[in-house]
Amino acid sequence: MWYYEKKLQYPVKVSQCNPMLAKYLIEQYGGADGELSAALRYLNQRYTIPDKVVGLLNDIGTEEFAHLEMIATMIYKLTKDATPEQLKAAGLGAHFVNHDHALYYHNAAGSPWTATYIQAKGDPIADLYEDVAAEEKARATYQWIIDISDDPYINDSLKFLREREIVHSQRFKEAIEILKEERDRQKIF
Amino acid sequence: MWYYEKKLQYPVKVSQCNPMLAKYLIEQYGGADGELSAALRYLNQRYTIPDKVVGLLNDIGTEEFAHLEMIATMIYKLTKDATPEQLKAAGLGAHFVNHDHALYYHNAAGSPWTATYIQAKGDPIADLYEDVAAEEKARATYQWIIDISDDPYINDSLKFLREREIVHSQRFKEAIEILKEERDRQKIF
Amino acid sequence: MWYYEKKLQYPVKVSQCNPMLAKYLIEQYGGADGELSAALRYLNQRYTIPDKVVGLLNDIGTEEFAHLEMIATMIYKLTKDATPEQLKAAGLGAHFVNHDHALYYHNAAGSPWTATYIQAKGDPIADLYEDVAAEEKARATYQWIIDISDDPYINDSLKFLREREIVHSQRFKEAIEILKEERDRQKIF
Amino acid sequence: MWYYEKKLQYPVKVSQCNPMLAKYLIEQYGGADGELSAALRYLNQRYTIPDKVVGLLNDIGTEEFAHLEMIATMIYKLTKDATPEQLKAAGLGAHFVNHDHALYYHNAAGSPWTATYIQAKGDPIADLYEDVAAEEKARATYQWIIDISDDPYINDSLKFLREREIVHSQRFKEAIEILKEERDRQKIF
Amino acid sequence: MWYYEKKLQYPVKVSQCNPMLAKYLIEQYGGADGELSAALRYLNQRYTIPDKVVGLLNDIGTEEFAHLEMIATMIYKLTKDATPEQLKAAGLGAHFVNHDHALYYHNAAGSPWTATYIQAKGDPIADLYEDVAAEEKARATYQWIIDISDDPYINDSLKFLREREIVHSQRFKEAIEILKEERDRQKIF
Amino acid sequence: MWYYEKKLQYPVKVSQCNPMLAKYLIEQYGGADGELSAALRYLNQRYTIPDKVVGLLNDIGTEEFAHLEMIATMIYKLTKDATPEQLKAAGLGAHFVNHDHALYYHNAAGSPWTATYIQAKGDPIADLYEDVAAEEKARATYQWIIDISDDPYINDSLKFLREREIVHSQRFKEAIEILKEERDRQKIF
Repeated sequence: MWYYEKKLQYPVKVSQCNPMLAKYLIEQYGGADGELSAALRYLNQRYTIPDKVVGLLNDIGTEEFAHLEMIATMIYKLTKDATPEQLKAAGLGAHFVNHDHALYYHNAAGSPWTATYIQAKGDPIADLYEDVAAEEKARATYQWIIDISDDPYINDSLKFLREREIVHSQRFKEAIEILKEERDRQKIF
Repeated sequence: MWYYEKKLQYPVKVSQCNPMLAKYLIEQYGGADGELSAALRYLNQRYTIPDKVVGLLNDIGTEEFAHLEMIATMIYKLTKDATPEQLKAAGLGAHFVNHDHALYYHNAAGSPWTATYIQAKGDPIADLYEDVAAEEKARATYQWIIDISDDPYINDSLKFLREREIVHSQRFKEAIEILKEERDRQKIF
Repeated sequence: MWYYEKKLQYPVKVSQCNPMLAKYLIEQYGGADGELSAALRYLNQRYTIPDKVVGLLNDIGTEEFAHLEMIATMIYKLTKDATPEQLKAAGLGAHFVNHDHALYYHNAAGSPWTATYIQAKGDPIADLYEDVAAEEKARATYQWIIDISDDPYINDSLKFLREREIVHSQRFKEAIEILKEERDRQKIF
Repeated sequence: MWYYEKKLQYPVKVSQCNPMLAKYLIEQYGGADGELSAALRYLNQRYTIPDKVVGLLNDIGTEEFAHLEMIATMIYKLTKDATPEQLKAAGLGAHFVNHDHALYYHNAAGSPWTATYIQAKGDPIADLYEDVAAEEKARATYQWIIDISDDPYINDSLKFLREREIVHSQRFKEAIEILKEERDRQKIF
Repeated sequence: MWYYEKKLQYPVKVSQCNPMLAKYLIEQYGGADGELSAALRYLNQRYTIPDKVVGLLNDIGTEEFAHLEMIATMIYKLTKDATPEQLKAAGLGAHFVNHDHALYYHNAAGSPWTATYIQAKGDPIADLYEDVAAEEKARATYQWIIDISDDPYINDSLKFLREREIVHSQRFKEAIEILKEERDRQKIF
Repeated sequence: MWYYEKKLQYPVKVSQCNPMLAKYLIEQYGGADGELSAALRYLNQRYTIPDKVVGLLNDIGTEEFAHLEMIATMIYKLTKDATPEQLKAAGLGAHFVNHDHALYYHNAAGSPWTATYIQAKGDPIADLYEDVAAEEKARATYQWIIDISDDPYINDSLKFLREREIVHSQRFKEAIEILKEERDRQKIF
């Protein structure tokens, strides 16, 4: 079980009210390769992954929830002072009439999050490649958002998050090697 | 952010390998009114709900993740020793060829979880009624699973969870009254 | 069964061709808390709700179809004289290439209607809280559309509809109290 | 707007409690080519179809709601006296833990109804071919359910409904010819 | 099985970088009545259609993949030189943060392709009417895109594709007549 | 564009009518990690992948369509002689009332195929890891189906397909290394 502490993993500041940036940032909240996908994927795989890797999935899965909270905080700060007219002008009119200023788990195009974005196969190697791919895709998404963003504070936080994805990808690749080695060792004896 | 402690909110025991019960229990893992829906709904609403209610959503949202973990543990314990043939006989053959013994966020009929199960309107009264309805529906789902279950250990855990939903529903109803009173008081002055 | 009379429940007028308003209004046609969701939810619940409440669900469910027809009429009148260029400028270009001037059951962001927006649990209290929540969410949606609308005729119709949702919510809350009283009385004797 | 009269278009009787038949029949309630798809498709197309065909879509759309009500009544009668154990044995356990004895708009495999089953293009000929195809597909579905059913009362009602689909298909084909003739006449002058 | 030859069925040229046109054109890549729907629908129906029609489905299904490739080529050429800012201005910002310049099977509004767009009933007449309707709807979609397009080269290719749909529709109608005649002949003898 | 030759990539034989095996095999037809997902993923990524890898994606994508055809042939052969009663007994009753003996792109649990199963990021390394993960997951799925299958002829074909996935995974891993080397070389100069 989890304990909540009222603190963010890494500080989140925004330069100004900027609903258009929020519109794109929501991709990492409720999009295919966003933080919700990441957290739910890893925590779900814990039960059938070899013991050696459970702790890794647990740690990264829990961290991804902290990332989700950072993204939520950014989106909220970028939109909380926006008028309906400003949201409309930013392409968030459809979001506004459905959710007002509330957040929602959809991607930048407004498609609701679906569990079909993630997978669990029971096969440890397949599951860990799913995880490597997920981190590489999240890294790419952060890059595209940074490319489109004009807020240096947001970009600072996004670069932190992009770095974390690179670290996670590395850890998952190492886990694959460990499991393969073990598998090969078992075949020899 | 959250901290993980390797412990369940309430102990989970199973009488025996019982994949058919697991098949139905998965409704509360990845179904419309399951624990994933609950956790994600409340944590997402935190940003636009009045300050007075943020703590409540935070606490209950975090607790629902603990419930999700209990459900996951039950499903895993009920299926981990089942052979493919036993899974097939229990109506879990379709799950097996896709996920082996891994868990997945779908409902008992195999439909993947979708964010369209939950809502956030930005209107505090509407959001809290959404939450009351969610708890009442979760309570009903636990009742139907208990009705169909033949494992006394599982039923003990499910009754604990059902009670928690009733408590949560009560807390959300109280929050509605607090917000309505405040709203009415503001109208007077 | 139903009989159709060629008449609207409440008159619908539009000030002028206004495809951008239509874009947002479609949220109440095919969106999560729109009139289609309402009508289908209540009529579907009729079969397992206690006899005392069947008439209420039947009346409100039938009325929601009249509301759906009003919304459809508004959307059609707001868009029928718009050129493709005007639809494009209003953010309806994606709708146009798929549906021309025809209506379709999707929300303002273009996500198609799905039955996962609604629920039926068989438990009368849970189902009626689902209905209360639905009306509160519909009320909020009408408010957000009124906030974003600049057409006084449309707003007049939307205010009528918003009032109806408030009345429905009240009726469903009363039904909950009636069923709870009955349940408690049965427990005493 | 519509008026409800408490009467079915055609009488519905069932031989006995038969949840397995209900499981298949639900295909015509919330499945791709079922009565919900039909009613919503035709009523939605009314706004952009030529005046000559509006009445036809209105009549058939309204009739399809009466068919939906007949199907709902059949499903309810086939399941209302079934115990959870009987529902489980009939392959309706997943439906039960989510909905108890309530109905729901999903197909026989448990996939929720989605508006993507239907279409509206604004082009009258294309829309009417969509409607012809819909009726032909509904006719086929009724045939497959009759083939799998062992209840003569249900089959009597299903044959009535299958006949209605054939009549509707014929009416839509005639409407296509009328519109094509008119189009050709306009080209000549 | 299929052999690939590096050549398009019909040449594809674009006047200039034009991401807004690409945004609408993607409707025929991953939309309801687009080329992916067409190819997958016909090739899937091959197995249960009467022998007489298998070749037709095979030929048209294979051709539709060639059309899909033409559409993909157009979209890619219209967007490959666009900057993130240009994509944003064209309403493709949501696509960019998720997919950069890559293509994806969604419709113009960003809804991912789903198999629920297509159907296979096993009944040859019903399946062929599904196919006729599909071609008529694809024809309409090409018309709406041509109406909204300002690129004469693209329009030349789109007119070629629209003509092919009309030819396919005619072929499917003929196949229906052949099967009906055969059916009637079998009834006589 | 593609040319069709009426021949399978590898011969497909079935021991006997076996609809239950068909029910599970359909996972590789229209499931998350099936051949449809594979073919559509690779062919879609061709446009933005570096030139060096285009041929690889083209070859493998085209081969996956040949695999899809093999799977379709297996499913059809396993079910074509089954009566409605046999389909019902095999858990294919829901499929039958919707599709008769026709195939359809859904997974073993009956969920329709959705493009959300696949991804394209525009980032070559991320896309190739997506492809490696896809092949590893397809390999696992073939393994689970072989584990559950009792038809030696089918298993022979499935083992061929499983081997192909392993080869493809290897090829994609090599492509990643080639691209990484190139990237590193460019950084040096």
